[in-house]
Amino acid sequence: MSLSLNQWTTRRWSVAEAVDGCARHGLEAIGLWREKVAEQGLAASAKLVRDAGLRVSSLCRGGFLTTGGEAFAAALADNRRAVDEAAELAAACLVLVVGGLPGVKPGEPLSETAGRDLAGARERVAEALAELAPYAGERGVKLALEPLHPVYCPDRAVVSTLGQALDLALAYPEEQVGVVVDTFHVWWDPRLFADVARAGRRIASYQVCDYLHPLPADVLLGRGMMGDGVIDFPPITRAVLDAGYTGDVEVEIFNADVWAADPDEVLATMKARYAEVVRA
Amino acid sequence: MSLSLNQWTTRRWSVAEAVDGCARHGLEAIGLWREKVAEQGLAASAKLVRDAGLRVSSLCRGGFLTTGGEAFAAALADNRRAVDEAAELAAACLVLVVGGLPGVKPGEPLSETAGRDLAGARERVAEALAELAPYAGERGVKLALEPLHPVYCPDRAVVSTLGQALDLALAYPEEQVGVVVDTFHVWWDPRLFADVARAGRRIASYQVCDYLHPLPADVLLGRGMMGDGVIDFPPITRAVLDAGYTGDVEVEIFNADVWAADPDEVLATMKARYAEVVRA
Repeated sequence: MSLSLNQWTTRRWSVAEAVDGCARHGLEAIGLWREKVAEQGLAASAKLVRDAGLRVSSLCRGGFLTTGGEAFAAALADNRRAVDEAAELAAACLVLVVGGLPGVKPGEPLSETAGRDLAGARERVAEALAELAPYAGERGVKLALEPLHPVYCPDRAVVSTLGQALDLALAYPEEQVGVVVDTFHVWWDPRLFADVARAGRRIASYQVCDYLHPLPADVLLGRGMMGDGVIDFPPITRAVLDAGYTGDVEVEIFNADVWAADPDEVLATMKARYAEVVRA
Repeated sequence: MSLSLNQWTTRRWSVAEAVDGCARHGLEAIGLWREKVAEQGLAASAKLVRDAGLRVSSLCRGGFLTTGGEAFAAALADNRRAVDEAAELAAACLVLVVGGLPGVKPGEPLSETAGRDLAGARERVAEALAELAPYAGERGVKLALEPLHPVYCPDRAVVSTLGQALDLALAYPEEQVGVVVDTFHVWWDPRLFADVARAGRRIASYQVCDYLHPLPADVLLGRGMMGDGVIDFPPITRAVLDAGYTGDVEVEIFNADVWAADPDEVLATMKARYAEVVRA
């Protein structure tokens, strides 16, 4: 396993700056975000990572597929574009955050039309996957379904456990659909170790960050530097390795303090913490 | 099924006031809290509910059993007292909120000695149950293991899913250990309907309240009046009924606005909402 910088961890950096940062700190891989790639330009971003000899451990992110009607077709079209981008960047996978209940938006009060049909939203995900998996397969891109912590079920992801993501993925060939193991999202799951073993080589991405306590008012920013929260990493890392995962370990932290810090210090800290508290 | 007032919903009321309120609104059952019972007096509380002809649908709560060492013995002793109280009150069950990681406290920053051994904390729960289940059985009290939403895993309950609670309960006779189905805690679970069916008559308590969006800064207070959040209740109610549950439906809401409201209005609203949005 080798460490990868998910570029949202150093959110103020452009793709060019993040690629330079990885080189400066001896990292071999980077996780890119579509927004940052669009700012830099797709072809330019692909050239930057290629010239720097970096692997692209993931592209974040497709998904948001749970709205029915016309918005569903638009979401599928956007996801096909994300697949094309992942192909051009030679990303190891395209991370899918599948979306929450239809009409339920992060940070906004419930509207009159907010959906409560959780089972229906989950069916939309399965339908979308049936459209997108073959498309991705033809372009050599692996979709990586990311289960999000159940606290995000209303507004961000109705795929809430690794087991649920895995059951969805298993309907497709291994090279088309895998799953993400993100410690923040799954550390609490009593079935975690059984499902990591069951996932085996379906694990398309291993992402690490800590679960802070107490959570900040905006729970999205409850992701902390490894060692700053409640997660015991080595058993999870060992299980992922034992399952046959040979990819990179991405550090993806959404945290106001980390974003405010000097990105070079963040990279130095994440390297040190990886060695101290994450490795099996 | 018949509606029950969990008295924390009308938190400002004493046991005597809550018993009167139930009678005034035609409710047949009440869920009591140990703190309130202690303030009223145990024998006095038992007499009040008996004279009013109310069933005690649950006593809240025992638990907090995940700390090892000397604190573990003290926690067991306190839980035995809770069992005795449940017996005197003829409560249908004693709800157990099992506790979080050792040394991790709600609302307080992590200390240097905070525990990260989640598997160990879960073992403590199983050990405690082995002590408490026979004790409860001898006194005709059913322990009801309550899985809490995974957002409470660090500080309140390392039992995070209905399936996990059920696996713990199944080691004991049905009359000794059951499980709680609280909509707030389990609505997101992809395995909910399978595990409710598997639980069958192990369901010792069905508690309802909604899951608000967005959550307030203190996630403990994210419990809302039914209809004010994202939960689709009838499928869950139907599943609980189909599993063979014949007990009361307790409304348990932790919510600053509900606590600030006139308790009689809260009871009127909960009766109306129960009929409108909860019943199968």
